[in-house]
Amino acid sequence: MTGEKLLKRGTFVFPSGPRICGWASAVGKKEGEGPLGGCFDEVWEDTSLGQRTWERAESRLQERAFELALEKCGKTPDLIFAGDLLDQCVASSLAHKSRDLPYLGIYGACSTMAQGLLLGAMAVDGGFSRVCAAVTSSHFCSAERQYRMPLDYGAVRPPTSQRTCTAAGCVLISSGGQGPIIRAGTVGSIVDAGVTDAADMGAAMAPAALETLVGLFDATGTSPEDYGLILTGDLGATGAGILRELMEMKGLHPGKRYADCGELIFSPSQDTHSGGSGCGCSAAVLCGRVLDELSRGMHGRVIFAGTGALLSPTSLCQGESISGICHGVILERGVEA
Amino acid sequence: MTGEKLLKRGTFVFPSGPRICGWASAVGKKEGEGPLGGCFDEVWEDTSLGQRTWERAESRLQERAFELALEKCGKTPDLIFAGDLLDQCVASSLAHKSRDLPYLGIYGACSTMAQGLLLGAMAVDGGFSRVCAAVTSSHFCSAERQYRMPLDYGAVRPPTSQRTCTAAGCVLISSGGQGPIIRAGTVGSIVDAGVTDAADMGAAMAPAALETLVGLFDATGTSPEDYGLILTGDLGATGAGILRELMEMKGLHPGKRYADCGELIFSPSQDTHSGGSGCGCSAAVLCGRVLDELSRGMHGRVIFAGTGALLSPTSLCQGESISGICHGVILERGVEA
Repeated sequence: MTGEKLLKRGTFVFPSGPRICGWASAVGKKEGEGPLGGCFDEVWEDTSLGQRTWERAESRLQERAFELALEKCGKTPDLIFAGDLLDQCVASSLAHKSRDLPYLGIYGACSTMAQGLLLGAMAVDGGFSRVCAAVTSSHFCSAERQYRMPLDYGAVRPPTSQRTCTAAGCVLISSGGQGPIIRAGTVGSIVDAGVTDAADMGAAMAPAALETLVGLFDATGTSPEDYGLILTGDLGATGAGILRELMEMKGLHPGKRYADCGELIFSPSQDTHSGGSGCGCSAAVLCGRVLDELSRGMHGRVIFAGTGALLSPTSLCQGESISGICHGVILERGVEA
Repeated sequence: MTGEKLLKRGTFVFPSGPRICGWASAVGKKEGEGPLGGCFDEVWEDTSLGQRTWERAESRLQERAFELALEKCGKTPDLIFAGDLLDQCVASSLAHKSRDLPYLGIYGACSTMAQGLLLGAMAVDGGFSRVCAAVTSSHFCSAERQYRMPLDYGAVRPPTSQRTCTAAGCVLISSGGQGPIIRAGTVGSIVDAGVTDAADMGAAMAPAALETLVGLFDATGTSPEDYGLILTGDLGATGAGILRELMEMKGLHPGKRYADCGELIFSPSQDTHSGGSGCGCSAAVLCGRVLDELSRGMHGRVIFAGTGALLSPTSLCQGESISGICHGVILERGVEA
């Protein structure tokens, strides 16, 4: 069995074709005002979501994405993979503390949704779960306080910086039924390009994205032309530009097939500098737009490549460079037989 | 296939019997002076491990456990599951940043090693990995600074408090070969007993441990008498005492079969109050003692139940209660045919 599924170190196929049987997204006001505003299931004008702390607001946003996905799909998962950017992933544990469902915390920075898709597909294809959930969130206000400055300080940010999205997404993965198929994926290695500027995380993550995409193409014998969409999340405009150049240098020419969630979620007029970031950004773009497009037949096959910057405020203060990681997932339309 | 592996929500068996083909532990000075001092592969008298920050010291300790496990087993993993207690799991990402091996970050507080064993066994049994690693670490000095007070402040701690161990453990799981078998396991749900005292985390985790153990016994049709050892990690003396009472109330009488890693790793004379804690504690006790005992035939079958307290310094300040989680793993001696 191993020989069939494991194509190459870190890249495997899911022969049973786990289905994404439900998905949902919930976002904040600014994300709702962006180009994808009409795609999300819920837009919260009040980004506190009526909660007494920003951490609870993020947690509630994650809960909403989870609850909406369950409502839309009509199935309850038997396993939850959840993660976020807060210290000790506390938005996720708060969100699921009263749920009485088996829970596994994951941490991949902004690559968390891709990681959840891969682990969820492994659990379902491997026979350990009938329906599992992959859910992530981020919140501008909880992230600013933790990673940068309390909002009240009004810090000025450089053009390479990204804005953490107030957003959450949830995917339900099942062993049968309908919906887009998780066909294959690559678990990435950590790549450190020596970047130490926390306001330029796209540059820190782009080399990892390249390595994972090259590995995924190589192991599956495919090329950019085989995909309707190759989506990274979230390199932002700066990082996506770097990745485009790196791909050209490797002889890969995705052209307009390539897009980045951080670029898609905000328009330049929204003054978010290099675009969006945060676990919730790629999750919300996946759940708000890409899965709908796949199920409507706009694409036959898509790569969703979650990119994460592995750092902490402490590691930055100590002068450690920012490592990047990228996990790639091949999603297919899933035409019914 | 699902029907065979998934016994009940969150509890599954691994029919192929993934093997723990290598394991190693590395600890600090105080852990080396404890009752299990002679069991560990490496004891570092200099708990800085020659590094310039405590975070790097922890990271180096995790690296040493990983490197030693690979040396002892002679195999290189194709997938790493790693996690720790630091913000954004940065000890783990630092430890594996130059390794060029597929990497998945996990967060389960002190339950992380049990979570890694379950995910690793799922990956191997499911056919997605030939050899994978589960590795965790904690360090007294990095944890004190982050969760409580900088060491220099000399904070006084109550009798219910536990001491974060300077310790790391690594397990290699393979689809064949020799070594103890990962037979089954239970992914726990989050249980919140309403505890808000961060100096009494054993009390916060004990109800989760009870729920997971009861679920594991129930789904597998076993009882405490079927195991040579039932090991939680890390409830400490206070939490283990509570769990003993809770088990008695449920009609479970494990007696001397039950032990807790936090109680085992330090002796009362070492003035660690309620005992050890931290991701590295249960990992080092598992890799330093339990797996050796299993492979020497001292036990036929063991439950390793990792317990985690899901909190962050921020969530504590905000008055959130401390949730607990417990993941249980059934390990067997693995007699060769």
